[in-house]
Amino acid sequence: MGLVKVGVIGIGNMGSSHVQMLDKGQIKGATLTAICSSNASRIKWVKNNTQGNVQIFRDVDTFFNESGIDAVLIATPHYSHPELAKKAFAKGIHVLIEKPAGVFTKDVLEMNEAAKLSGKVFGIMYNQRANPLFQKLRDLIQSGELGEIKRTNWIVTDVYRSQSYYDSSKWRATWKGEGGGVLLNQALHHLDIWQWTTGFLPKSIRATCSIGKYHDIEVEDDVTAFVEYENGATGVFITSTGEAPGTDRYEIVGDRGKLVVENDELTFYRLTQSERDFNATYTGGFGVPEWKKIVIPVKSENANHSMIIQNWIDSIVTGSQLLAPGTEGINALEISNAIYLSSWLNETVELPINPDLYYEKLQEKISTSTFEKKSVTNTTLDVTGTH
Amino acid sequence: MGLVKVGVIGIGNMGSSHVQMLDKGQIKGATLTAICSSNASRIKWVKNNTQGNVQIFRDVDTFFNESGIDAVLIATPHYSHPELAKKAFAKGIHVLIEKPAGVFTKDVLEMNEAAKLSGKVFGIMYNQRANPLFQKLRDLIQSGELGEIKRTNWIVTDVYRSQSYYDSSKWRATWKGEGGGVLLNQALHHLDIWQWTTGFLPKSIRATCSIGKYHDIEVEDDVTAFVEYENGATGVFITSTGEAPGTDRYEIVGDRGKLVVENDELTFYRLTQSERDFNATYTGGFGVPEWKKIVIPVKSENANHSMIIQNWIDSIVTGSQLLAPGTEGINALEISNAIYLSSWLNETVELPINPDLYYEKLQEKISTSTFEKKSVTNTTLDVTGTH
Repeated sequence: MGLVKVGVIGIGNMGSSHVQMLDKGQIKGATLTAICSSNASRIKWVKNNTQGNVQIFRDVDTFFNESGIDAVLIATPHYSHPELAKKAFAKGIHVLIEKPAGVFTKDVLEMNEAAKLSGKVFGIMYNQRANPLFQKLRDLIQSGELGEIKRTNWIVTDVYRSQSYYDSSKWRATWKGEGGGVLLNQALHHLDIWQWTTGFLPKSIRATCSIGKYHDIEVEDDVTAFVEYENGATGVFITSTGEAPGTDRYEIVGDRGKLVVENDELTFYRLTQSERDFNATYTGGFGVPEWKKIVIPVKSENANHSMIIQNWIDSIVTGSQLLAPGTEGINALEISNAIYLSSWLNETVELPINPDLYYEKLQEKISTSTFEKKSVTNTTLDVTGTH
Repeated sequence: MGLVKVGVIGIGNMGSSHVQMLDKGQIKGATLTAICSSNASRIKWVKNNTQGNVQIFRDVDTFFNESGIDAVLIATPHYSHPELAKKAFAKGIHVLIEKPAGVFTKDVLEMNEAAKLSGKVFGIMYNQRANPLFQKLRDLIQSGELGEIKRTNWIVTDVYRSQSYYDSSKWRATWKGEGGGVLLNQALHHLDIWQWTTGFLPKSIRATCSIGKYHDIEVEDDVTAFVEYENGATGVFITSTGEAPGTDRYEIVGDRGKLVVENDELTFYRLTQSERDFNATYTGGFGVPEWKKIVIPVKSENANHSMIIQNWIDSIVTGSQLLAPGTEGINALEISNAIYLSSWLNETVELPINPDLYYEKLQEKISTSTFEKKSVTNTTLDVTGTH
């Protein structure tokens, strides 16, 4: 097999970064042969920043029909991911979509179905799954070392954004353009890692989303969600783009101790004996089970977009397993949709939520929106160092 | 003025500790002259563990009428605090009550009224207020250094208790005997410090209390509460006696940075510029306000019961200010009552809650209780190192 011919559609913040990575030959076994964008200045940017031989398309259907690509990297605004992915699968093209999988689960379920039917390699840019720290964390949970999970707690407030970020494009942080705020954009990786490391989705969610609390936007920039799991464990997920300096602290408590990820360090507070056993047999009143603090020697690597692209290309070439299968994109989206729905309805919601109900409520948000952005700068932002 | 003649009523875990402190002359200006207990073995303990000259009373009214004490330290089970305090005030006796102030606010409001009418010195054993770390934390907030509060978050899970603790006496962890679980016993200090350091009570609370989740008890041992404040700030308070090793991490985010208390250390992540100002003026998209990490050099001292007793005696002798006025005992109780009520009703409750409604619901819990403790050891536990 020769080099996999890759196209990139959408040349915004992320797409531009992917184009450079591919163009510089940083992905083994792949070559950038085409891009698609309707934005003249971004097309000009591609021409000026690639080595040539990259076909330029302005129209989506022509791109899929005539570019001759084997695989497409979809980095367009969120809403279009499922539709574009379905077009690609219909043409027998492998797909890697940027996160989120889409904006509502109804659409994403259809995309997943199309992916399965096509038999093509379908990945999603959950690049945090390539972080060795989260892989180790997941191992410690999935191998049973932590014991049965009792509680999870993630404070994700180190995703600060100023008004100028929201003003950088018209579609950003609107119901119509982006379909959500901090949950769907900054904290979606965390939602994925939350369910991926623990291995389960919440059973029910009760959440409060604050709309434009710290910014002039019509979507949420501050969220607190309380979740309950099937096994009786509980969890809290907090995120905000209005706090500085923020916190990124993920704690998972199990029957055999506690795992904490903070400041790029993974610490295991490991019990000698299971807490449930200690509780049942100890007779001394105020005693606490014996434990040891173990700093797990693993390095956190945050921005592994290239690893996910490489993993996807490898899977296309050799059939190897995907780290982030596209069909799993629905999990974090399911959580975020449930958080919105709980907040909109002001009640506890059960998962999976009703995809039609969510779609309907989202359409209401869009159709009743009267929000106008005061100033839009139309800036493409450098995403170096972001997730 | 001679030495303040102090009586102690209730010779359980805390009362025994106070008796020893007073008897050993560790409280300046005070002398232990009487105790009251209906428990023969505890009376025997007092006789064996004090220097003599301590009058022993078995009956409450005789104790208040005939002991000739100036001041009483009330360390009986929770429910009796308001009633005994009222008896003392009626006799013109100064009062220091153990926490909680009572079990329901209805009763405590009456006690506070009686205290005011008596003009006597009324304190409560919120000994955490004597911790220099929390005093410094409060200063940083109240002086405006942190700026307007945006969010509070306290994880209080380092209050592990095994079944043997709950089995140490019959009244413990029952609605009838104690009126609550982890909230009213282990985490009440934290609830007080939470409202005392921030300077405000929540406006509304939405909470989930899990009953006997980790222990064979009829009250809660696991709680998650989400609160909203008048100024729009939000907060989360988590506590459990079923996790080991637990966490004690208190984070307060303001417009000028973030304060974190963890591992007995106070850290101030201080912004150079207010976040609100930065947000309004910054134009660069992904930037974050500049900050410095400052470890505040203050030592945490956890078990200052003696300081609160001394402070109370000093106030009796010199009229100096109380660190923990008894009338403020209602604040943490108001929060805990609201958390229970929210969980029982499965809805968001506004503060202050209706004292009559809470009283009624609590009576329902008591009257419908069918819980029987399987084994009761009747042990007096050594409280050294607990709060």
